[in-house]
Amino acid sequence: MELTLKREALSSTLQNINSVVDKSSTKPILSNFVIRTMEGENSEVEFSSTDYELSLVELIVAEIKEPGSICVNAKKVFDIVKELQDEDVHIRSTEQLWIHITCGSSELRLPSVEVGLYPQTVLEELPQSMTISVDDLKHCIDMTLFATITNESRRNLMGVCLCSTSDQQTRWLSTDGHRLAQIIKAVDNLSFGEDQEVIIPRKALTEVRRAADLFGETVIITFDGRVMQFTGGRINFKTRLIEGKFPNCDPIIPKNNTLEIVVNRENFINSLRIVSSISTEKLRPVKLIISQGVLKIESEKADYGEVVDEIEAGYEGEPFQIGFNSRYLLDVLAVIDSEDVKLECKNSMSPTIIKSTADEAFLSVIMPLRVEW
Amino acid sequence: MELTLKREALSSTLQNINSVVDKSSTKPILSNFVIRTMEGENSEVEFSSTDYELSLVELIVAEIKEPGSICVNAKKVFDIVKELQDEDVHIRSTEQLWIHITCGSSELRLPSVEVGLYPQTVLEELPQSMTISVDDLKHCIDMTLFATITNESRRNLMGVCLCSTSDQQTRWLSTDGHRLAQIIKAVDNLSFGEDQEVIIPRKALTEVRRAADLFGETVIITFDGRVMQFTGGRINFKTRLIEGKFPNCDPIIPKNNTLEIVVNRENFINSLRIVSSISTEKLRPVKLIISQGVLKIESEKADYGEVVDEIEAGYEGEPFQIGFNSRYLLDVLAVIDSEDVKLECKNSMSPTIIKSTADEAFLSVIMPLRVEW
Repeated sequence: MELTLKREALSSTLQNINSVVDKSSTKPILSNFVIRTMEGENSEVEFSSTDYELSLVELIVAEIKEPGSICVNAKKVFDIVKELQDEDVHIRSTEQLWIHITCGSSELRLPSVEVGLYPQTVLEELPQSMTISVDDLKHCIDMTLFATITNESRRNLMGVCLCSTSDQQTRWLSTDGHRLAQIIKAVDNLSFGEDQEVIIPRKALTEVRRAADLFGETVIITFDGRVMQFTGGRINFKTRLIEGKFPNCDPIIPKNNTLEIVVNRENFINSLRIVSSISTEKLRPVKLIISQGVLKIESEKADYGEVVDEIEAGYEGEPFQIGFNSRYLLDVLAVIDSEDVKLECKNSMSPTIIKSTADEAFLSVIMPLRVEW
Repeated sequence: MELTLKREALSSTLQNINSVVDKSSTKPILSNFVIRTMEGENSEVEFSSTDYELSLVELIVAEIKEPGSICVNAKKVFDIVKELQDEDVHIRSTEQLWIHITCGSSELRLPSVEVGLYPQTVLEELPQSMTISVDDLKHCIDMTLFATITNESRRNLMGVCLCSTSDQQTRWLSTDGHRLAQIIKAVDNLSFGEDQEVIIPRKALTEVRRAADLFGETVIITFDGRVMQFTGGRINFKTRLIEGKFPNCDPIIPKNNTLEIVVNRENFINSLRIVSSISTEKLRPVKLIISQGVLKIESEKADYGEVVDEIEAGYEGEPFQIGFNSRYLLDVLAVIDSEDVKLECKNSMSPTIIKSTADEAFLSVIMPLRVEW
């Protein structure tokens, strides 16, 4: 194989490639990636990497002198290429599996691996599909990814559940057992049975989100019960879906809430940060004391001191108080972008809805804490 | 004690205070700091903290309602104050050792410690002194601190050695045994015997450098054989000096060098970064191959590949080659600010001088590596 690429395009592609590559090093072959020329295609080459769960296939413009394919360490190539200075990078492989990379006055010689040993990613025709704008996709990921579980304790919660609603929209849903996040979004060309649902892993959504602007305007999402592909521009992600059943969260979302509080989102964030800063616990519990027109926020009474703050609140009912982990409140307040947010609940022990006052499509539910101070 | 301060000034002072505070938590009392009003002084209060080795005493404008002093946890106060939003911060202590801090609608209540338990920093009249501009002080620290030792293996190398030269300038010198850095700088009002030398600890110089812009235009440095004080504006640092003798480095600085190479500093940095990026060793050894007009840089030949690069060099002599840890070269190239740098040595096994082509006051020496590839 012999080809020439633009250094900037190469560097940006390698960053995506390297981000997918398995960092655990339990399977050494997965520390590599593949460059491959395609039959009948003279101006683009295919870069691909996989960790078995998630694969990336990205096309990049190249001047191809001799077709072929190579498999080489992703991190090493990325680390060196990001230091290079010249415009063009020339890559050539020898029969002895050496890769020669030259750029300006710099010359690299790297050992490579038989391409046949690397698991090849095959993009498939899949039965279900939908088209979504890149902005909508980014929004749906942002509004749900934060509430997924990050440890391995419950594999079915380590991703976002996607299903379709009765009115042919998509529903994106995540929960870690203490809180949930849900957004409803209209998409185009949806072919998705109403009784079906898939669970998209965190890592896939994180990588899709990170590279989203490279998709262009829209992304075509195709899937079956096993795998999902995100395709747009020159980029394709393919991920295995999480097996298992997502819990039915509908009973947790409280209906007919009698208590409604509206507060300015930024003031609420500032107050929570001030009050929670005294806490040494990871989730930083706080107490909200709500009365007509006022939301008072109190830290726990710890050995190292206590903090209270208050902000204006739109509230007309009887005074009451409710406890939360401030970390959960701050997570959802960080993704909402309206000026005000609304809290809805029934009483001081009921799950509480936190949502934007401007966007009915999103809601988040947080379980309250029993506060004993 | 009761007083009101501006939040921004408080926040900036607390950052300095907190930076001096002992993080090791082996002596819990040192996690605190002290605020103290001064007799006959109605518009400024004194903030101070110490880790026994290094102390900071900073004055800050305040509206004093009731004089007194408090001793309170530095990190907690810093963490909370940086989240506050309003302009004024009001601090009040009670007889039960509670500290009340209010800012806008935020109220904190923190426990405090008897001020008498905290080691008080006393600024002293010291026999030796000099006056240096803040820019010169920053420069002297930048040009030497990088070559000090960071582990505890040789305590006398964990700082910068300061002495005076025969022509009444100061000499700042550091070494870690593999390299050294030296800068000569004229100062004002120098009273420093020619046979004397002091070793200023890393941490003191790091903190003085970080806070340097708060000193104003000039810094007065006073010292004896035990301690050194840096005073300027509203800030005073006092540090113990490192006991022990600094090694005589003069024999290591090679004289009468016959080989001289001049290279563009940025090109040299770029090439070193490209070539060293293949290495997995911490210090990243490289080989410099020098011939007329050309400097070629080669990585070691490792399992994971090899890199070479070359740049233009001003050199007229016989070809030769010499090995270095690229980390040491990059450290000194990062602090030099001239367009070109000059390397001077005798042969491929001799210590090598690296210096600016524009500033004769600075030099660095790096020991070569035996390169066996």
